[in-house]
Amino acid sequence: MNNQTHATSTGTVDTGAVDTGTVDSAAVRTWLVGLQRQIVSALEAEDGSRFREDQWQRENVAKSEQSQPSQQSQPSQQSEKPALTGGGGLTCILEGGALLERGGIGFSNVSGTRLPPSATAARPQLVGRHWEAMGVSLVLHPRNPFIPTVHLNVRFFVAQPIEGSGEQPIWWFGGGMDLTPYYGFEEDAAHFHRTCADALQPFGAETYPRFKAWCDDYFFLKHRGEPRGIGGIFFDDLAEPDFATAFALTQAVGNGFIEAWLPIAKRRRDHAYGEREREWQALRRGRYVEFNLVWDRGTLFGLQSGGRTESILMSMPPGVQWAYNHQPEPGSPEARLLSHYLVPRNWV
Amino acid sequence: MNNQTHATSTGTVDTGAVDTGTVDSAAVRTWLVGLQRQIVSALEAEDGSRFREDQWQRENVAKSEQSQPSQQSQPSQQSEKPALTGGGGLTCILEGGALLERGGIGFSNVSGTRLPPSATAARPQLVGRHWEAMGVSLVLHPRNPFIPTVHLNVRFFVAQPIEGSGEQPIWWFGGGMDLTPYYGFEEDAAHFHRTCADALQPFGAETYPRFKAWCDDYFFLKHRGEPRGIGGIFFDDLAEPDFATAFALTQAVGNGFIEAWLPIAKRRRDHAYGEREREWQALRRGRYVEFNLVWDRGTLFGLQSGGRTESILMSMPPGVQWAYNHQPEPGSPEARLLSHYLVPRNWV
Repeated sequence: MNNQTHATSTGTVDTGAVDTGTVDSAAVRTWLVGLQRQIVSALEAEDGSRFREDQWQRENVAKSEQSQPSQQSQPSQQSEKPALTGGGGLTCILEGGALLERGGIGFSNVSGTRLPPSATAARPQLVGRHWEAMGVSLVLHPRNPFIPTVHLNVRFFVAQPIEGSGEQPIWWFGGGMDLTPYYGFEEDAAHFHRTCADALQPFGAETYPRFKAWCDDYFFLKHRGEPRGIGGIFFDDLAEPDFATAFALTQAVGNGFIEAWLPIAKRRRDHAYGEREREWQALRRGRYVEFNLVWDRGTLFGLQSGGRTESILMSMPPGVQWAYNHQPEPGSPEARLLSHYLVPRNWV
Repeated sequence: MNNQTHATSTGTVDTGAVDTGTVDSAAVRTWLVGLQRQIVSALEAEDGSRFREDQWQRENVAKSEQSQPSQQSQPSQQSEKPALTGGGGLTCILEGGALLERGGIGFSNVSGTRLPPSATAARPQLVGRHWEAMGVSLVLHPRNPFIPTVHLNVRFFVAQPIEGSGEQPIWWFGGGMDLTPYYGFEEDAAHFHRTCADALQPFGAETYPRFKAWCDDYFFLKHRGEPRGIGGIFFDDLAEPDFATAFALTQAVGNGFIEAWLPIAKRRRDHAYGEREREWQALRRGRYVEFNLVWDRGTLFGLQSGGRTESILMSMPPGVQWAYNHQPEPGSPEARLLSHYLVPRNWV
């Protein structure tokens, strides 16, 4: 560990004075814990309600191994063996707030000695290594349908070398944020993407367009032929050019979140709405559920590998509807969301 | 084809006078179409509203190949290539009824010339064969929280031998029905299971217990350590002892549905309820969504292989809620559902 590499709660890292190649997971943890605290405070100030805090520790045996009722008949599902063996987290949740109908921000830090075959198949060099994963994940479902739902995630993975092997740690960062409006506003979409682009600007002009395209690609409901929302940025497996720079980039994304979303929420929170807008919001929230449960790798891996269900599913919306083949009236604001916003566009 | 093997709309098959080994997919189709019609009529009579009927044809190119917006960045998801290349179906849906808040019954009959690798990996003898799949699938979400949600599925798969190969068709039946109450009633659970057991009785005393255990095993939310409901029966890959008997068993299951569920619905439909019961129902419906989107093989395969989304997702409930770590009050009827009904039990 390099004690000179550390993050403050506002996320600045002096990458000049330190060995930029030294992996410092303690610094990442300190930053993540501070980021969660900072976002909780900003949201509480805006909402007027407090988040509930739920500190949890990982059990050693996964639920799926404990309570399966019957093994008499054929096994129904190929399930990953539990991959997580230690650690815990802090889940902060606000339900029934004036601004947030349901919002969760989770910090987790889990570790283990054995990765599941799905992880080591593609990276055989991970076999036998002690690994650690940490991150902050957030989904906010506002009450007012004119405020978009938003998602942020920043995460870090490191696998230590086997003692005496002389090998290096294997590590990467991942994350991003994306916006899911129920009613489209050019101004809001442009502001969100502009803030993302500004945060990434120090890391090269090509970074924002690359992460923007990656986000469009990832948050796409293939079974609907439809994007989840108006996108944002997404990245994974980031281990270039060195630890300090990749960490600084991840910090820029996390630290940019409040500026990306809160001005939009403030601008729309007093926008009048009625039953019609709430119903549309509930139907569109159904798409959010579909994406998270059918396509989102993090959610599926977590649920299938014995992760903490309530923390993973804090992303679920508070009230959701499904209706057969629902089509908004042509020319309506609801139809305009689909035709003008849920299409690939450059917002900056 | 053996013209002597055919099913009537009430599902009787004379297995005595025919070659019980001859695969007759036309007879299966005729029975399935009649079963759907029969159930629709019975439910319309009880509800007082009509089902909407939506006849659909399969497009040749799957959605997921047409409208993916960006291929610039890394592919986000390992998706099956579309497995379905022809056919269609009839989706019947009732929303906003007096009895059924949302209910769907679908018949589908699809075919193709190439099975996806996931199907042929386990059965290499299927490679290159023309295949056909057909079935009736039903999920009913009643409005009254004292009436359980119910699911029925009966299906048939056949892959024809390659011409001139001298091989036999490969075929199997699958299906079952299961009950998901929001409030437990011993009488209802016993009636449902008794009807299932009676339907299977002609096929051997061991059939019901085996299919009952298989159902408990299949409809289990591993990430919650919780069954979806009080079970019922489930079977798959049934190709024993011969075509006619396997078909007759499948017919017995499908034809038993109305008797298994309708008396329960009639008994509970005037049971008074309020906001509390509706909220509990909405929370429990969230579990239904979780099972179907995270664990149900049919749903996942359908959505990931370019199946018809609206037909697959007619199983989704009309109104759903999620709340963090919701626990019913000890001693309440809601708590009793979890402690006395959503546990492995013998109901017959």
